[in-house]
Amino acid sequence: TRVGMGYDVHRLAAGEELWLCGVRIAHEKGLSGHSDADVAIHALVDALLGALADGDIGSHFPPSDPQWRGAPSSRFLAYARDRVAARGGVIDHVDLTIICEAPKIGPHRDAMRARISELLALPPPCVSVKATTTERLGFAGRGEGIAAQAIATLSLPALS
Amino acid sequence: TRVGMGYDVHRLAAGEELWLCGVRIAHEKGLSGHSDADVAIHALVDALLGALADGDIGSHFPPSDPQWRGAPSSRFLAYARDRVAARGGVIDHVDLTIICEAPKIGPHRDAMRARISELLALPPPCVSVKATTTERLGFAGRGEGIAAQAIATLSLPALS
Amino acid sequence: TRVGMGYDVHRLAAGEELWLCGVRIAHEKGLSGHSDADVAIHALVDALLGALADGDIGSHFPPSDPQWRGAPSSRFLAYARDRVAARGGVIDHVDLTIICEAPKIGPHRDAMRARISELLALPPPCVSVKATTTERLGFAGRGEGIAAQAIATLSLPALS
Ligand SMILES: [Mg+2]
Ligand SMILES: [Mg+2]
Ligand SMILES: [Mg+2]
Repeated sequence: TRVGMGYDVHRLAAGEELWLCGVRIAHEKGLSGHSDADVAIHALVDALLGALADGDIGSHFPPSDPQWRGAPSSRFLAYARDRVAARGGVIDHVDLTIICEAPKIGPHRDAMRARISELLALPPPCVSVKATTTERLGFAGRGEGIAAQAIATLSLPALS
Repeated sequence: TRVGMGYDVHRLAAGEELWLCGVRIAHEKGLSGHSDADVAIHALVDALLGALADGDIGSHFPPSDPQWRGAPSSRFLAYARDRVAARGGVIDHVDLTIICEAPKIGPHRDAMRARISELLALPPPCVSVKATTTERLGFAGRGEGIAAQAIATLSLPALS
Repeated sequence: TRVGMGYDVHRLAAGEELWLCGVRIAHEKGLSGHSDADVAIHALVDALLGALADGDIGSHFPPSDPQWRGAPSSRFLAYARDRVAARGGVIDHVDLTIICEAPKIGPHRDAMRARISELLALPPPCVSVKATTTERLGFAGRGEGIAAQAIATLSLPALS
């Protein structure tokens, strides 16, 4: 067993779409940045790459590379899933935490779990999506951005 | 093996009690919010629910529900422990990190470990409580609040 | 299997050396604080101690103790490694995340992995080093400090 962890932050801005866990959410602001800025998927990609000790999302998909501008983050997650499979690994469990004051995540949890489950070909009971606020403290609490943390448990063959 | 992770933040305020890991600590301020605002137990509950892929503390105990006002967070932890047992799971290990400038956690570590150990029916060698400061940076560093992170390792029967 | 997690923050200041993962990095600022202030190694030490439920870096190496002033953090990591071995444990995997706006971590990743690998006597495929920014948000985003998170997967004999 190997466990990897990811963390990411993106800014909230007017005029941007809000994508979280591959689900489009209606909100007064969206996330700006690299690709569609799906901060939850980015954290999850880093958790998977971390468990593989295979760089990070920025080393595989440089933000400076114009081909990833506006790209759906689902592509990055499919890529990380394939990296796990190519190493003979199996994803046992993933657990995501979205840290924001708004929007409310609860109403979208099932759709998010279903989408991550689909993208990873992992049963929904192995996909956790949680949310928390920071009680109006810090950048997430002031609504300046959204942070996400992810943890992934993998089974990987012994290293040769 | 499945590993879940939790994160929580509560505000420090005058005139509140300070509860951390189920232990009352004498301090000039306490934590405000949902229940007794024991941020460390809340993070741990989320780590357990995350490992189970069973929602989060807010979905089981909505902060808007008046019945949890001032409730001891030990109730939430007992509930999460029972959810693990009901799934045939075993908690192998939990590790908590309390992030604050003050109070000092070290003098309370043994009491905290003993209390978590008791609440989870887990031997103390399987319960870790750690602390760190943020060197006066950010909301925790300015003493505006306390953050906590938790990670839980579970053994769970294969999904049917 | 037990999984521990660590988090640490140090301030960036002019006139200090910058050490990350045991590697000296040329940068306009460095980290201040306890020892050489290698925030990544400190997080990793806490992840290992957390998996052992054996206190935290501050309990083993009090910042107030003058003997650790300017000490290389590699000593703390060697100590944590030896604590794992003394318990009959094996480190299966470690995954680090460095959170900062600058410097760029990518160019130093291989050197960092090699150094951690050497200090832990762990093959490089079991050592992950990742980095992320916070999109100029919060203390890390403003360049006031660097944060690091670490997670360690251990195999430990059953408790007697
Ligand atoms: Mg990102
Ligand atoms: Mg809470
Ligand atoms: Mg430190």
